[in-house]
Amino acid sequence: MGSSDRDDANARAASLRAAFFTGWTKQVGLEPVELTSSVVVAQWYADARHVQPHGIVHGGVYASVVETCCSVGALLAAPEGTIMVGVENHTSFLRPAREGRLTARAVPVQVGRRAHLWECNITDDAGRLIASGRLRLMATDAGSQASG
Amino acid sequence: MGSSDRDDANARAASLRAAFFTGWTKQVGLEPVELTSSVVVAQWYADARHVQPHGIVHGGVYASVVETCCSVGALLAAPEGTIMVGVENHTSFLRPAREGRLTARAVPVQVGRRAHLWECNITDDAGRLIASGRLRLMATDAGSQASG
Amino acid sequence: MGSSDRDDANARAASLRAAFFTGWTKQVGLEPVELTSSVVVAQWYADARHVQPHGIVHGGVYASVVETCCSVGALLAAPEGTIMVGVENHTSFLRPAREGRLTARAVPVQVGRRAHLWECNITDDAGRLIASGRLRLMATDAGSQASG
Amino acid sequence: MGSSDRDDANARAASLRAAFFTGWTKQVGLEPVELTSSVVVAQWYADARHVQPHGIVHGGVYASVVETCCSVGALLAAPEGTIMVGVENHTSFLRPAREGRLTARAVPVQVGRRAHLWECNITDDAGRLIASGRLRLMATDAGSQASG
Repeated sequence: MGSSDRDDANARAASLRAAFFTGWTKQVGLEPVELTSSVVVAQWYADARHVQPHGIVHGGVYASVVETCCSVGALLAAPEGTIMVGVENHTSFLRPAREGRLTARAVPVQVGRRAHLWECNITDDAGRLIASGRLRLMATDAGSQASG
Repeated sequence: MGSSDRDDANARAASLRAAFFTGWTKQVGLEPVELTSSVVVAQWYADARHVQPHGIVHGGVYASVVETCCSVGALLAAPEGTIMVGVENHTSFLRPAREGRLTARAVPVQVGRRAHLWECNITDDAGRLIASGRLRLMATDAGSQASG
Repeated sequence: MGSSDRDDANARAASLRAAFFTGWTKQVGLEPVELTSSVVVAQWYADARHVQPHGIVHGGVYASVVETCCSVGALLAAPEGTIMVGVENHTSFLRPAREGRLTARAVPVQVGRRAHLWECNITDDAGRLIASGRLRLMATDAGSQASG
Repeated sequence: MGSSDRDDANARAASLRAAFFTGWTKQVGLEPVELTSSVVVAQWYADARHVQPHGIVHGGVYASVVETCCSVGALLAAPEGTIMVGVENHTSFLRPAREGRLTARAVPVQVGRRAHLWECNITDDAGRLIASGRLRLMATDAGSQASG
């Protein structure tokens, strides 16, 4: 892509970077590592905030991370002015984690004009797959978003 | 059921009630309203903690609430000593919400010996359906839980 | 609704009825029982055509039935000229069935302008729930459908 | 693995190869190309049998192929005597196909002692991704299978 496209993508990535530090994604403590239209990487430290009663990380944390990383990737991959809204989040829980750094890596399965499918894998520092989810997103105009 | 069974179920419900006020479910601010083996009702007030950058409630909040309500129901419906762990959380986002009280209501689709399927609908105070999800859970013994 | 609307809906139901007897839905042997914009009921007889190697009905049969019933319902519920295409089919298998009549009943979870979510339960003649699935559909114009 | 393990795996693959030519998988017309514990590849020719009323391949065909390929892979990856039964099939439809050869390729996301998660991508001869699904399977003993 040309340099103005790249500047534009960089500006959008910077704007999305800020989004990690507000609202629900801030509650997770998720920090952006790499934000591009083909891969989103983010990390957080699992601790007492994130657990369910048995002391392992709550499935909703993983689904939240899948939602954020896939949504950010979809926004970066969509044409400017198009809002991508998550409509279906399907997250599978593969191995319990209790604490420590976890890394999420989202990539597109399909980027279409009207809909995307993104996938996000979450691993621990030993490289083990902890959870994996997919988010289906629909394109909408700025006024009518659904959720996500 | 007999009165000792009922006492037992009441004791477990009391124990699970406490679980709402620790870890990730406390981060949501979810409060239990009704906890039985056939229905779980809980509520929270959506505010600035829960939103994504467009000011609407983040999809991960709904998935987290689905996860908690279905997991609590499954634990109440399972024989004592059986741990039910969520393995697949599938949450659909149906209508954006910005703030105010939201109510989650989880019911069993199937309660088997080795696996359950639970469903949770989330509505606003106008009775509109905001999100709806399903959680597949597997039975395990106390030592080997997966997530959830 | 007025009588011309009803005539129109009846005409569309008749047209969709024919669709049961072509292509993949004919392979299943699925027969329409009730086709309206708020409920779709259909039945088939499970036999040797439908099984996997252990002699029980193959999960793909249930997913196919979910897909057909929810798609037909969505078409009946959408404004005329709008094509609803399935984008995500999520089917849960709850109890094995070997043979005999099975009944599918699909109802809308949400009917929006741009997207629907439908749900379909499949039961045997003893009223036991065998499988249950959900189909997310997106509205499109007649020229650009995705699948379904 | 040792040569007797390999012989054993080959014997199981031969047995599963036969399974493609019975019941529902035969209805699809799916033919095995490669059957191992780490990848399952199969192909079929989409034609008039497989379509929905708009002339494109019915979503249930893709879900059926996902179910078969992931189930066969899970059986090959599980210890002998363990039956893996599909409990949740989640298939996403990405691009319409009308006719011609389609190729399914299933790989494990996670192979655990008690549960697996497999993923299956379906592409056309131009290499385009047409559909993609995931199957969650649970281990069971030979007598109590659920579906699949």
